[in-house]
Amino acid sequence: MPLNIALVHYPIRDKKGDISATSITNFDIHDIARSARTYGVERYYIQNPMPSQKKFAERIIRHWREGFGSEYNPSRGTALELALVIDDLSEVVDDVMERSGGKPPIFVGTSAKTYPNTVTFENLRRRIQNGTEHFCLVFGTGWGLHPSLIMDFDLMLEPIKGAGGYNHLSVRSAAAIILDRLIGR
Amino acid sequence: MPLNIALVHYPIRDKKGDISATSITNFDIHDIARSARTYGVERYYIQNPMPSQKKFAERIIRHWREGFGSEYNPSRGTALELALVIDDLSEVVDDVMERSGGKPPIFVGTSAKTYPNTVTFENLRRRIQNGTEHFCLVFGTGWGLHPSLIMDFDLMLEPIKGAGGYNHLSVRSAAAIILDRLIGR
Repeated sequence: MPLNIALVHYPIRDKKGDISATSITNFDIHDIARSARTYGVERYYIQNPMPSQKKFAERIIRHWREGFGSEYNPSRGTALELALVIDDLSEVVDDVMERSGGKPPIFVGTSAKTYPNTVTFENLRRRIQNGTEHFCLVFGTGWGLHPSLIMDFDLMLEPIKGAGGYNHLSVRSAAAIILDRLIGR
Repeated sequence: MPLNIALVHYPIRDKKGDISATSITNFDIHDIARSARTYGVERYYIQNPMPSQKKFAERIIRHWREGFGSEYNPSRGTALELALVIDDLSEVVDDVMERSGGKPPIFVGTSAKTYPNTVTFENLRRRIQNGTEHFCLVFGTGWGLHPSLIMDFDLMLEPIKGAGGYNHLSVRSAAAIILDRLIGR
């Protein structure tokens, strides 16, 4: 699939809406990599500008790809082959262009709100299946992607609606549902 | 929704397929409760027969429902209001019957395989929307629900298929996708 996903740890919003950074979570690395592999995503970028955080994530990924973890549970290694730790989303552009024959990716942010450039699941699903464009879906940690980042995205994806007013899915669950809606079945 | 979910920690399969027990994971408590609340699930049962494990889960739930967590992030408490720690799935029967006017729940297991009593997402979705039957979707931890448990279920749910042969979603991601397919949109 011409689809990539990125998990952003900076700049994101904290509880009050201010700019903030979060730490990388082990469960985010695994769960989202496994969902990405299940739905044929090309690359899973884990963005964090802090060197100690990047080292932490890279150590986990190496354990499952090459270390003892790769023998204990090879399916984790298969999922984490997709994972790439990056400083900044600008690295996504170069990486995708290498695989797309020079076409830059279309960045699609995810949020619980709607924006003037919001696309529906159906519309984005059709464009992905069409196969001529390359996309990078962007997920925020903490209290969501910071507006300064959202401003730069080409598109925003329609929020997930459940059965009532409550809408506080974990980023792991949201990523799974979104991939299923865009690619599943 | 006349739908409940249960997360089973015993009896489940270990890596070799043998009977085993797993520990309760903090992320399973939170992520699945948040998905359950988002999709209007009635109750989220966390099954584990070990007293120390039950205490652990109950302490976490209390922290977010009544303790400091309820002030720090009230939406977590709202999700965890659905959570109930139980020894055994037989407790689900009594609990559902109190809310269903005496109708026992229909147990629906989840698995990466198909069985003679497998139902499709579409079929189960229709029966849930119909509103006359009460269901309990059952999820396994570890390497999945043990066959001795599966034998007793009324129905099994069709496996989630992604885009290729890889099918190793986390139970948190699988629960999110299944609730979205059965109730979402």
